[in-house]
Amino acid sequence: MKVAILGFGTVGQAVARILTSESCGLALSHVLNRNIDRKRVDWVPTAVRWTEDIEDVLSADVDVVVELIGGLAPAGEWIRRALESGKSVVTANKQLIAREGPELVRLAEQHGQRVAFGASVAGGVPVISGLGEGLAGDELVQLCGILNGTCNYILTQIESAGFSFEEALAQAQQLGFAEADPSEDIDGLDARAKLAILAWSGLRVAVDHASILARSISVLEPIDFEYAALLGSTIRQVSRAQKSGGRLFASVEPMLVDSSSPLAGVKGSQNLVMSQGRFGGETVFAGHGAGGNPTAVAVVSDLFSILRAQPARAAAFAGEEITELPVSADFTTRHYLRFVVRDEPGIIASLALVLCRAGINIDSVFQKPGFPKTRLPFVITLEACAASLVKHSLDEIARMEFLVQPAVALAILD
Amino acid sequence: MKVAILGFGTVGQAVARILTSESCGLALSHVLNRNIDRKRVDWVPTAVRWTEDIEDVLSADVDVVVELIGGLAPAGEWIRRALESGKSVVTANKQLIAREGPELVRLAEQHGQRVAFGASVAGGVPVISGLGEGLAGDELVQLCGILNGTCNYILTQIESAGFSFEEALAQAQQLGFAEADPSEDIDGLDARAKLAILAWSGLRVAVDHASILARSISVLEPIDFEYAALLGSTIRQVSRAQKSGGRLFASVEPMLVDSSSPLAGVKGSQNLVMSQGRFGGETVFAGHGAGGNPTAVAVVSDLFSILRAQPARAAAFAGEEITELPVSADFTTRHYLRFVVRDEPGIIASLALVLCRAGINIDSVFQKPGFPKTRLPFVITLEACAASLVKHSLDEIARMEFLVQPAVALAILD
Repeated sequence: MKVAILGFGTVGQAVARILTSESCGLALSHVLNRNIDRKRVDWVPTAVRWTEDIEDVLSADVDVVVELIGGLAPAGEWIRRALESGKSVVTANKQLIAREGPELVRLAEQHGQRVAFGASVAGGVPVISGLGEGLAGDELVQLCGILNGTCNYILTQIESAGFSFEEALAQAQQLGFAEADPSEDIDGLDARAKLAILAWSGLRVAVDHASILARSISVLEPIDFEYAALLGSTIRQVSRAQKSGGRLFASVEPMLVDSSSPLAGVKGSQNLVMSQGRFGGETVFAGHGAGGNPTAVAVVSDLFSILRAQPARAAAFAGEEITELPVSADFTTRHYLRFVVRDEPGIIASLALVLCRAGINIDSVFQKPGFPKTRLPFVITLEACAASLVKHSLDEIARMEFLVQPAVALAILD
Repeated sequence: MKVAILGFGTVGQAVARILTSESCGLALSHVLNRNIDRKRVDWVPTAVRWTEDIEDVLSADVDVVVELIGGLAPAGEWIRRALESGKSVVTANKQLIAREGPELVRLAEQHGQRVAFGASVAGGVPVISGLGEGLAGDELVQLCGILNGTCNYILTQIESAGFSFEEALAQAQQLGFAEADPSEDIDGLDARAKLAILAWSGLRVAVDHASILARSISVLEPIDFEYAALLGSTIRQVSRAQKSGGRLFASVEPMLVDSSSPLAGVKGSQNLVMSQGRFGGETVFAGHGAGGNPTAVAVVSDLFSILRAQPARAAAFAGEEITELPVSADFTTRHYLRFVVRDEPGIIASLALVLCRAGINIDSVFQKPGFPKTRLPFVITLEACAASLVKHSLDEIARMEFLVQPAVALAILD
């Protein structure tokens, strides 16, 4: 089976290394990249054609196109043209699959081809195949995981080294774990695209990724990890989706997670996905979510899947009914509220009154000693209630003059 | 696709529940069991044929036979006859697959059929498909996991409740987690059959399960968990297999595992498998290793895999080269040695001399206070060396008169 690689960066080179490291029924035939002469290496077979022109690939006798250039254009058009010219496609492009996955699967089926995207979520962790094939016999109702290694690296650095968010981000950028513009990662946009793909492939719910709530981790301070520890918890950027009552509840946000949860054990840039099935209960998949080699393993596993003439992973559920459900972030959940106030009598009474009027019960109040009265941080935890109720109450509380900065509200994962 | 279930116990009934709970392209056609009248239920379609006679199934227009009777006979013969009569087979029978898996896969291929056995290891955890398909693009070099929920339940009870081994076993038996004759579980025979299947499907090494070292957890005492905790560790029944230097290192034995390891986080009857790949690094699969519903999910996932005309999981690597390697349990590893002695001067000197002559370095010595001088437990940990060296030294030490009972030696997982 002849394979063309579009995009010869870290992942593309790692794919080429695996394909040329042993005879496996897969032959690298084309490598496409801009400024291709800069990219030539001497360790691939001499028969490989190096090109900058997509027409060279599309007109050639290539069986599968591996798209690793990323972004929406021209990747989307090239994938569509590859499928239309009778080539299957393997891609790691989460932004494209989150937006156009179902359409690309339909197009592939129309042309008797396949589109596989195991590398688009959680890199080397085989979660797309795990949900679509390994757990095909179950009816999955909930997914929850850590899908962004950059955020997890930053959060575990704040947790373990006591860095501020800004320091941890700067360090991650220095080490190459975070981009110069880190917004896709820290604001949850990257994880939300992956969550949309998981909701589609695991829960069989088509969801517009832009309709999923994404909240930034940039509001967190080291004091939040100290209070979380008092509560037997830590803080993670959690992506979760739950089918319930004809709705899809979904969000990407920093949450308190119990220290005994597998989510709390995820260190550095690792990824983890937990699924909850109607019959099989909880299943966990974990491993390296990024990096050239782990992502390349996912790509080559998809190539093998196509080589073995299996339906693509997506096709496993393309035939099944994909539902469209209204999307909500209004989970019913416990909450952690952290305030920073200028101390004066009656603050807790004022806050309690607002919460009481909304019908929200306070679960606990924590105030660590040793802070100045002009910038006093303290924490209230709430019993389970709708997230929208909490938000409404916090809008009211935001007008109170004793607040030195906006309150931080985190859902608590149960 | 018409499905016959052989064996209508907990798992068989759970499979029938899933098959009849929604229209999924799979139709239950036969249920076979001894004393079948005792087994009839009213919630399956009336067209289902209830029988005690395998000929009814083999002569019928059935597409897939689900074998859930367990044991070697008559299960093996029935599976072979089903394949020969043009039916694919799904089985949860670890003892049979560990012994005859490669042969059954070959027989299935000869008859254009498939044999799938995702339920034979780790119940609902999709590890067979995960290794064979999700990680097909990697070259796996090492597997390590907790494959026996009964042992893990017993060990976590000793750990958390301070039970003796005998108390924890009795409790597990009362709760139905352990058999009246618990030897298959606690002596590691169950886990070793599963490890042989994983070595075959994940590492592509055919191994006779009986050639894998299996050591019992029955030698453990609560004091071992106390000393393990001093070492930042706990104790788990670990199944591991490693391809190295033209050999397969493999064993099932109680080991010290670091408290931060995913293995230490496995509570109760859960299962977990970690794979180490040449390219993708470490990947973790975890979930419910047993129980009717999780095992049924694995069975139905295999049925879907056959329905989608995918090659069976085993066939994924049946085409690839399966090697046969000499099997060894002689891992090079750190060790924990626990002695119980009648105290007298010079004990540690005597032990140290034996270890020194074998070229083994002592790493640490621990002696907790508060024990009688006539039954004094203490612990020595050793730097990494071949397990066979340790065994040889312990044979020599066993003759020393100050020993009140045989020493307990546990490898330490790094």
